Amino acid sequence: MTDGKTPLGYIGLGLMGWPMTERLLADGHPVTVWNRSREKLAPALAAGAEEAATPADVARAADIVFTCVTDDRSMDAIVFGENGVAQAGAPNKILIDCSTIKPDACRRMAKRLRDETGMGWIDAPVTGGTAGARAGKLVVMAGGTEADIERLRPIMTAVSQSFTRMGPQGAGLVTKLCNQVIVACGKVVLSEMLLLARDGGIDPASVPAALKGGSADSWQLQNEAPRIAARDFDTPRGTANTILKDLNIIHAFAQEAGTAMPVTALVNELYRLHIARGQGGRDSPSIYDTIDGKR
Amino acid sequence: MTDGKTPLGYIGLGLMGWPMTERLLADGHPVTVWNRSREKLAPALAAGAEEAATPADVARAADIVFTCVTDDRSMDAIVFGENGVAQAGAPNKILIDCSTIKPDACRRMAKRLRDETGMGWIDAPVTGGTAGARAGKLVVMAGGTEADIERLRPIMTAVSQSFTRMGPQGAGLVTKLCNQVIVACGKVVLSEMLLLARDGGIDPASVPAALKGGSADSWQLQNEAPRIAARDFDTPRGTANTILKDLNIIHAFAQEAGTAMPVTALVNELYRLHIARGQGGRDSPSIYDTIDGKR
Repeated sequence: MTDGKTPLGYIGLGLMGWPMTERLLADGHPVTVWNRSREKLAPALAAGAEEAATPADVARAADIVFTCVTDDRSMDAIVFGENGVAQAGAPNKILIDCSTIKPDACRRMAKRLRDETGMGWIDAPVTGGTAGARAGKLVVMAGGTEADIERLRPIMTAVSQSFTRMGPQGAGLVTKLCNQVIVACGKVVLSEMLLLARDGGIDPASVPAALKGGSADSWQLQNEAPRIAARDFDTPRGTANTILKDLNIIHAFAQEAGTAMPVTALVNELYRLHIARGQGGRDSPSIYDTIDGKR
Repeated sequence: MTDGKTPLGYIGLGLMGWPMTERLLADGHPVTVWNRSREKLAPALAAGAEEAATPADVARAADIVFTCVTDDRSMDAIVFGENGVAQAGAPNKILIDCSTIKPDACRRMAKRLRDETGMGWIDAPVTGGTAGARAGKLVVMAGGTEADIERLRPIMTAVSQSFTRMGPQGAGLVTKLCNQVIVACGKVVLSEMLLLARDGGIDPASVPAALKGGSADSWQLQNEAPRIAARDFDTPRGTANTILKDLNIIHAFAQEAGTAMPVTALVNELYRLHIARGQGGRDSPSIYDTIDGKR
């Protein structure tokens, strides 16, 4: 079944990494996996993945190494740490990182990996959430050379509905930051809107259908606002902590670039307040409760 | 051609009123029109509408009187002023107001019209812009009695893709304020996002397509962000002044209701700043230039 399919690796089998690995296995690829905590490997191994002892072993077994971790320190350890990917790096191999990390950290690590081993690097952060990952319908914004991205394109059809080259390394991450500006601000704006509806005496749950197809319509209005209206916050699809992490990256990046982002800065502060109230581990639209004030 | 079709009236043939009148005429209704400045009537008269001398004459000729004006003072003058609609009001007639005005002003005027004449009142603010009006694809959020709204439903198919009853009088307007929260905040959020893209070295014009289908996707991202990226602000589809007018209604309503809306309040201030800079008559997404700071 795996004859002729590029051998792949996946490092970091969290909320996004595992469903992506599942789709790659289902597409017939051999996939070698590694995760910092071994227990998260169980479903991947049951689905036919091979376990590697170290990130370097993943890179030995695979031509293409996917990574999806929480921050650039974790990436640095996986790539350049003891038994890291770099120890098995080679010019015919490519690392494709789906994490949301700082664009400058990506560029620095990509250059170092190329200089030390010749291995390629694509930043390919994703959007679409765990549901998009399970359905193979992620939206992927990529940075890297055209040749590396074209080599990945047929593989990415298993996990994504679109895979767009935005420019050189880091450009995918800048685009993901743009995505997160919309997503994070959207959670607060929808919360304020639903509170206005409630306090104005209409049923908040009726608003998304009423506005469908109009100029206020959005993925978030149809998919997230109904969960906010129902206060369904206890299945974390993405936590408030993760949103604040992304907002902090955006803030640092904008500060460096000299870009004023008044609304995004306020949303950052509101998420900080929400987390200070002990809500960081809840699903990110739970910001509604902090804006409500009465919770 | 108009046999058996309910005789209609339309008062206020501005950016939205004229294309709505055109659709109602095309659907075979006789439409009697009045506008404060007569020159705006010319296209409607050329398309077969009848001119009335006063709002009262519109209400004499029509069973259903549409209105679309800029604020509740204008509505008050049209309905209760000299030769106003109320002078020809009757229990079998309905006024349907497509303006975006204060919900409490709507409730007060609706009650007075009912008490004085027995005439019904539906608040039916619309979204979808001039393009939606021309295509007969407006999204309409209505408040009023179920009987009045069901009587309007077949007529509204000529101008709208949806016509949703949100509750009693004022409920359509509360829903429109919800819509405007999303729309106004969206213009600022998209501006900040596109500035981050530009300052991060990627082409802002490439972002909407890259994010299409993901969790940041929206009507505004696909329809408004490309115009912002191209700084195409000189065809006013809706001016910054109109957005601030709606934000001021939202602010007063939220203040009365005790609803905290931190992001909406900041967006209100940013539009005030934009207008203080002399930009009020430009297309509302031109807020981008004020957030840019360099314009």
